[in-house]
Amino acid sequence: AQERKQPPKKMPFLLRFRVTAFGMNLGIGSQTVLWQQLTTLPATRFLHIPSGIPLGIWCAGVVLLPITSVTYLLKFLIWPQAVRLEFRPIRTNFLIAPWWAALLLCLGAPGEITDRIYGPGKTIHWGVALGFTIPLLAWEILLYSRWIYACEGRLGATATAATQIAYVGNFASALAFAGAGWRDPALFMFSFGILHWVVVFTTVYMRPSESQRLPPPLGPLYLLFISPPAMAATAWSKIQGPGHFDSLSKGFAFIALGLFVVLATRAHLVLRITFSLAWWAFVFPLSTTAVAFFYYADSVTNSSQKWVVTGIALFFWALFRVLGF
Amino acid sequence: AQERKQPPKKMPFLLRFRVTAFGMNLGIGSQTVLWQQLTTLPATRFLHIPSGIPLGIWCAGVVLLPITSVTYLLKFLIWPQAVRLEFRPIRTNFLIAPWWAALLLCLGAPGEITDRIYGPGKTIHWGVALGFTIPLLAWEILLYSRWIYACEGRLGATATAATQIAYVGNFASALAFAGAGWRDPALFMFSFGILHWVVVFTTVYMRPSESQRLPPPLGPLYLLFISPPAMAATAWSKIQGPGHFDSLSKGFAFIALGLFVVLATRAHLVLRITFSLAWWAFVFPLSTTAVAFFYYADSVTNSSQKWVVTGIALFFWALFRVLGF
Amino acid sequence: AQERKQPPKKMPFLLRFRVTAFGMNLGIGSQTVLWQQLTTLPATRFLHIPSGIPLGIWCAGVVLLPITSVTYLLKFLIWPQAVRLEFRPIRTNFLIAPWWAALLLCLGAPGEITDRIYGPGKTIHWGVALGFTIPLLAWEILLYSRWIYACEGRLGATATAATQIAYVGNFASALAFAGAGWRDPALFMFSFGILHWVVVFTTVYMRPSESQRLPPPLGPLYLLFISPPAMAATAWSKIQGPGHFDSLSKGFAFIALGLFVVLATRAHLVLRITFSLAWWAFVFPLSTTAVAFFYYADSVTNSSQKWVVTGIALFFWALFRVLGF
Repeated sequence: AQERKQPPKKMPFLLRFRVTAFGMNLGIGSQTVLWQQLTTLPATRFLHIPSGIPLGIWCAGVVLLPITSVTYLLKFLIWPQAVRLEFRPIRTNFLIAPWWAALLLCLGAPGEITDRIYGPGKTIHWGVALGFTIPLLAWEILLYSRWIYACEGRLGATATAATQIAYVGNFASALAFAGAGWRDPALFMFSFGILHWVVVFTTVYMRPSESQRLPPPLGPLYLLFISPPAMAATAWSKIQGPGHFDSLSKGFAFIALGLFVVLATRAHLVLRITFSLAWWAFVFPLSTTAVAFFYYADSVTNSSQKWVVTGIALFFWALFRVLGF
Repeated sequence: AQERKQPPKKMPFLLRFRVTAFGMNLGIGSQTVLWQQLTTLPATRFLHIPSGIPLGIWCAGVVLLPITSVTYLLKFLIWPQAVRLEFRPIRTNFLIAPWWAALLLCLGAPGEITDRIYGPGKTIHWGVALGFTIPLLAWEILLYSRWIYACEGRLGATATAATQIAYVGNFASALAFAGAGWRDPALFMFSFGILHWVVVFTTVYMRPSESQRLPPPLGPLYLLFISPPAMAATAWSKIQGPGHFDSLSKGFAFIALGLFVVLATRAHLVLRITFSLAWWAFVFPLSTTAVAFFYYADSVTNSSQKWVVTGIALFFWALFRVLGF
Repeated sequence: AQERKQPPKKMPFLLRFRVTAFGMNLGIGSQTVLWQQLTTLPATRFLHIPSGIPLGIWCAGVVLLPITSVTYLLKFLIWPQAVRLEFRPIRTNFLIAPWWAALLLCLGAPGEITDRIYGPGKTIHWGVALGFTIPLLAWEILLYSRWIYACEGRLGATATAATQIAYVGNFASALAFAGAGWRDPALFMFSFGILHWVVVFTTVYMRPSESQRLPPPLGPLYLLFISPPAMAATAWSKIQGPGHFDSLSKGFAFIALGLFVVLATRAHLVLRITFSLAWWAFVFPLSTTAVAFFYYADSVTNSSQKWVVTGIALFFWALFRVLGF
């Protein structure tokens, strides 16, 4: 803790640049998906969002990701030992983040961009989905094999809310494959993600050992509990095809909603922090939940019910507007 | 332990009146559901049960619940410190019980009562379901937020079979909403209940720590393992609509049946007790399982299969008649 | 450990004959299922496998099982104390193995045999499924009741990859019942198996305690992680009826595939052994996965996709040909 207060003055920038910085890319990536949806879904057309906002956020995300990645690559080249030190229970998960931050940016590309690149009406190409999924999967498998053989650190002793970053990318990849029409690879990523969600969620919820605690400055990461079911709801809906939001999707969306309420009741535990990089952890889960409920609203035909669901989605959107900025 | 043998003589009644007394209400509530079903389902019409029995049991339940609640409220007013002492791993779960005992009584109201209150053919009104679900959910969320932030007692160190009382109410609420035709709120309660079932069942089954043991007098609470899947089977069937009992419902019902057989093989561990309040823990799981199999029987068209399933349901009904009284 | 190096010289054969020998029967049993499938499924007809190979392997399996069983029975009669010593966390699971090795042999019986016994077109009779399921279930229930009451050894302290042997038999039994047309008993075995898969997989994956480690010579048993989802995929497909391989089956098959990749990346941990009885643990998971993907391939109508899936199935078949012999 003492060491922590001194670095900002002594250490060079690259050493202070931690892998958790990729959280920013996740935050902005999930926002592009949400904004793109707000402009295109029939359920939210009444908001009349000018197309400049999604385009601006998307461009910011596209610019930020290479900057973060190149900076981290420089750190790896200049201070490889410092990178090695980041292989710790919480931070190691963030090494997977850049790949699915890129997937989120691809999913959130505005219509005017995708129409020009892939042709009208297409939102993503399978090559893009595959290109980012392969390194994502490679990192994941490296991590999962450490868990399963318990090489370094059993999951039962090291899993925290931050561990979720290690598998939520599966749902982003499932969304990308589903968008490209590759239903079975989407199902592969989806089911492998669900498996790890069950294991990690159970582990973090029950806390088999005393040592599994998030340090207080990382409080916002608790909100990551919400995003796996929210993204699973969206992914399953997209695998089923447009306008489908069946009981399974609804179940996942409701689990996200329920966990949000559970977490919100003790918000003081989460909010007792000063501004930090961990702030992105508000943006990402809230926007994925909003996305899930916009998909839900889109599938509902009953008018009064549609308003309730749209209201929930807008609530999450508004909340992350308030907290996120 | 020493303290335990003395109280009956010295302590005033209200101090001896523990929160576990609400178990009685759960027991009688689940019975009203079962009896109401025995008189109405086509599969059990051959039993020719006089309508007085369900009515009598229901009235007893309706009288008992306010008595228990008011007594406990008195305890809270007179001895608030004693209520605070009940916030212990096992007993704290029973504070949720009165709300879903009330829901069970609403679900088990005999036809002559519901016809008069809600109009002919209607069994429950959404206002009733919502009115009892809101306090139920509020208590649950309080409890779940303690689990998820591990404020007091990690689930991995405190979960026992009694922890199941904390979420089984979700299925009672799902049944009430489904009966009132509110399909999506029913799905919310159902999916949130399933999530907690997976986490708590896994935790209690694996026992990550040595300390998770039920004290011998609470042996019957082991049977609570059976009720979540049994109630989930019924709830899912009711969400699907009358006469539906699909593979998912069957799966849950079979899990309840399988767990019953597993528990029954070591019945001596459960039965080695003298009569106590914990006795209700026989009534509740067995009657929920009987209810699930009566629903199952109702959906089967094949004649010989119908007899087997009805036989299983009647077996559970008979067993709780023998054990419960 | 010291004791371990001396026995081969001093101890009589029966004392050296451990219960893990039943692993051989599981290995050969799963192979008969695979070979029978290779000769009958339309997707693999192009391989033109002579019917003598499946018949030969099946006969070898049918001869081996009684030999192993009688030998072990002799051990039980002559050295009952030695059998009692095998009730240890890892080995005790193998006592369940002979029953579902028998089920696998029944499922893998070549067409010319089943046509003669049960009549043309029938592959299994419900009496056979029931006859082997009853003792299987009895053993399982004995074991599960020890887990649930935590009589000897909490699952959280003793579960290893080998624990999976205790419930994978459920899927073999589900396959047998589904083949015989008893859909609901198949669903019972399937859902009870899935329940235990979730609990045991989560436990072994998270490792709540330090002590849960497989000794290095049992490294191949790690591959058993693959077989429950693979067999669940096949069983669910068979419960649905011929030619059905829906999203749930695909999800299970993909989980098996994903876990295989995770395990394969650290193959050196698994392969660092000299030949031993544990070698069968390669044969069994790889052949069950191959079976699942052959079922999958059989349901695919799209030609290019069919080739990919058949390719995956043949890869697993080839891999176990290389490793298994």
